[in-house]
Amino acid sequence: MNIHYKTHPAIHPEPSIMPGPLSSDINDNDTDTSPLYSASVKDAVTLIRSIAPDTRIETRFIDESDGYTLAAPVVCREDMPGYCRSSKDGFAVHSHDILKATFENPVRLKYNGKIRSGYSEKQRIEKGECFAITTGGPVPEGADAVVMHEHAILKGKSVEVTCPAVHGENVISKDEDAKAGEIIYPEGWVIRPQDIGVLAGFGICTVQVRAMPVIGILSTGPELVPADGRPLRGEIRETNSYLISALCRKFGAVPKRYGIAWDGSDQLSHLLMIAVAECDAVIISGGSAHDERDRTAEVISGQGKLLLSGLSISPRKTMVIGEIQGKPIIGLPGHPASVYLLLLLVVTSLIQAMKGADAQGLIKEQVIAGVDIKGHPDREYHIPVRISDDKAYPLGRKAGMISILSQCDGIIHIPQGSTGIKKGEMAEMLDLTCIRSPVIQFRNQ
Amino acid sequence: MNIHYKTHPAIHPEPSIMPGPLSSDINDNDTDTSPLYSASVKDAVTLIRSIAPDTRIETRFIDESDGYTLAAPVVCREDMPGYCRSSKDGFAVHSHDILKATFENPVRLKYNGKIRSGYSEKQRIEKGECFAITTGGPVPEGADAVVMHEHAILKGKSVEVTCPAVHGENVISKDEDAKAGEIIYPEGWVIRPQDIGVLAGFGICTVQVRAMPVIGILSTGPELVPADGRPLRGEIRETNSYLISALCRKFGAVPKRYGIAWDGSDQLSHLLMIAVAECDAVIISGGSAHDERDRTAEVISGQGKLLLSGLSISPRKTMVIGEIQGKPIIGLPGHPASVYLLLLLVVTSLIQAMKGADAQGLIKEQVIAGVDIKGHPDREYHIPVRISDDKAYPLGRKAGMISILSQCDGIIHIPQGSTGIKKGEMAEMLDLTCIRSPVIQFRNQ
Repeated sequence: MNIHYKTHPAIHPEPSIMPGPLSSDINDNDTDTSPLYSASVKDAVTLIRSIAPDTRIETRFIDESDGYTLAAPVVCREDMPGYCRSSKDGFAVHSHDILKATFENPVRLKYNGKIRSGYSEKQRIEKGECFAITTGGPVPEGADAVVMHEHAILKGKSVEVTCPAVHGENVISKDEDAKAGEIIYPEGWVIRPQDIGVLAGFGICTVQVRAMPVIGILSTGPELVPADGRPLRGEIRETNSYLISALCRKFGAVPKRYGIAWDGSDQLSHLLMIAVAECDAVIISGGSAHDERDRTAEVISGQGKLLLSGLSISPRKTMVIGEIQGKPIIGLPGHPASVYLLLLLVVTSLIQAMKGADAQGLIKEQVIAGVDIKGHPDREYHIPVRISDDKAYPLGRKAGMISILSQCDGIIHIPQGSTGIKKGEMAEMLDLTCIRSPVIQFRNQ
Repeated sequence: MNIHYKTHPAIHPEPSIMPGPLSSDINDNDTDTSPLYSASVKDAVTLIRSIAPDTRIETRFIDESDGYTLAAPVVCREDMPGYCRSSKDGFAVHSHDILKATFENPVRLKYNGKIRSGYSEKQRIEKGECFAITTGGPVPEGADAVVMHEHAILKGKSVEVTCPAVHGENVISKDEDAKAGEIIYPEGWVIRPQDIGVLAGFGICTVQVRAMPVIGILSTGPELVPADGRPLRGEIRETNSYLISALCRKFGAVPKRYGIAWDGSDQLSHLLMIAVAECDAVIISGGSAHDERDRTAEVISGQGKLLLSGLSISPRKTMVIGEIQGKPIIGLPGHPASVYLLLLLVVTSLIQAMKGADAQGLIKEQVIAGVDIKGHPDREYHIPVRISDDKAYPLGRKAGMISILSQCDGIIHIPQGSTGIKKGEMAEMLDLTCIRSPVIQFRNQ
């Protein structure tokens, strides 16, 4: 079996992304809203892919392989189906025997009996003979076509064929599904339920896949109380670890939670280093805004290397990317809606890259804008929208609102340089149906 | 908390579906291709929904609730966010103080200091005063708007505001996310990752959901060998239990396998009754074609009630539906491509109905036909297609080929009475992206 291991395509960081600043450069003025370093989403994705470590290769039984990424191509071991099979219920014939068969002048063939399902010795027909055959049955030697039941009548010891069949008609040749040595699935393929059926049919019951990456999750912020706690004035529930965990699972990673760092860089640093030791990558939410209490960039710089701080998108999202002991560290904002957006735009790419998945992010599609959606040419915009009557409408909600998460059907991208999208124009939308359940939900009931 | 339990909407079977025939009516002539009883897919779905038993209600921690269906509406327990919060970094002000603020003539306010993140006593501003505030911070009493940083300059003990803010601007009121008593999610809602984030934010850490139905899976046919076995001439690998298991998991059911009934109705009947005792529903694959060896309908009739036999769709698919001890029994054909189609068209509805999910099958969308797709007005067609350049092309493959499973992007429906779809026309397609992974796959690499 000719299995070839290749590493996932290395995408080099754009030169525009400079190594991180010293921690003292950050937070020097908490009323300064301009980001210190600003990058496009594309820059962030390119960077994150370039530092994503490969997860280990493991062998899995196909029954437990849904959603895993192939670490090696799957090669067909033998011609499939292995013998000529009928694709219809009918009669196996020599096609040249019935070239002139018509309803008015049927051709009469000798009936040799029925080929039963299951194991059978090789059977053979001679000129002028036929066998009854069911779908999937092995076509006897000498036969090169199957006439459907509808076009033949069994009359005692003979069969009257009322319609010709050409060479190969209703016959699956012995290697029509796949040839021995053929690659059935390439390396990087993400296995789906139907693929598991195909693999079983091909007799391939174990596959080599990439292990799911373990993603450490940390929340930081003095305002946080646990989700099942009771927030006082000024406090909010810690939501992000639940959101990040559920999305990591959906995208094929194993979330591992390290709780809340309430205050100070010491506690955050301590928890972060435990997570770094135990995980393949770490996501920190909260603490990456340019606020005096936001220590994520500082902690990353202290323990490793800060690579990116700030995105040039609108509405503005703060984000930091760094690396500690060869493991990617991502700092996200505190607000769930921003966390959600950045998970979809950037973190999905990290998970995919770590698994070597042949994919470039979520599915994008074209939608019609239901209203004017304005942008400023200096920035790129990522606008949460709701789909109604097949048109996209921005969710004009305020930052910090949680309910926006459940109402967002997609995210429209307005690239830098564009002044926006006019009502009725087509826009590119990141499709969130993939993280919907596979069924339609009725909202207005 | 006003929780109301309703049963899932009862859809009554169409009168056109008659109670099952006696087993002796079946297979009286193995060359007869006309189905004994024929129903549309809609009939089959209506029937299957009418006999679907509800699964039990269980309480789950939200972290383990992705994909589950709510058994009761989720009600907001308290006003959210519970106090007025800022949606921007800036200064909390009286809006009437700064009505006339301009860049040339800024309004000067007394700077009271900064509202820190986290717990804070109630603070208050008087006329002419302001506090610095960060996104999410509690807006002090007396303030009714937040001026963004960009429009204000801190100068020692005062702040110069250069732009007015209207009442409520950049402020999230205490019940803007949701009011106490409001239904956040209705009964029947299928929980998604983003919903888990919303629930955590609302302090709702457990939910009442429907248990996942346990689906027994049985394969029958003398031609079968296990997937990791070595088929001889005339034999094929048992593929369907893998395919059905993987799809059941994807649609939120627990598959339970009962092996292969190689021969005879006794063995099938024995295994079936074990499965009926242990599962909520049973799927049998193979043995529902009109072949002398096909005993599924006979076995169901013997142990319970046969309700439907045969579908009037093209390409013809044999299918039986019955009921034993109040549990739905579905007999599917043997060929994986047919099994796949019927799982998508019919079995998904069974699983959804058992969980009480507010859903009517898979997501449908409109696509452009890339070629003429012909139909006959007497039948409905369900045609597997591949999408290329945003157009749908039928997969002109033969029944019994396994590789068709991995190439099918969707299924086009041609309703009864239609002569087909012309090249360039729109067609309704069952979208199989939902069972793709959430990322784009590259096929032609």
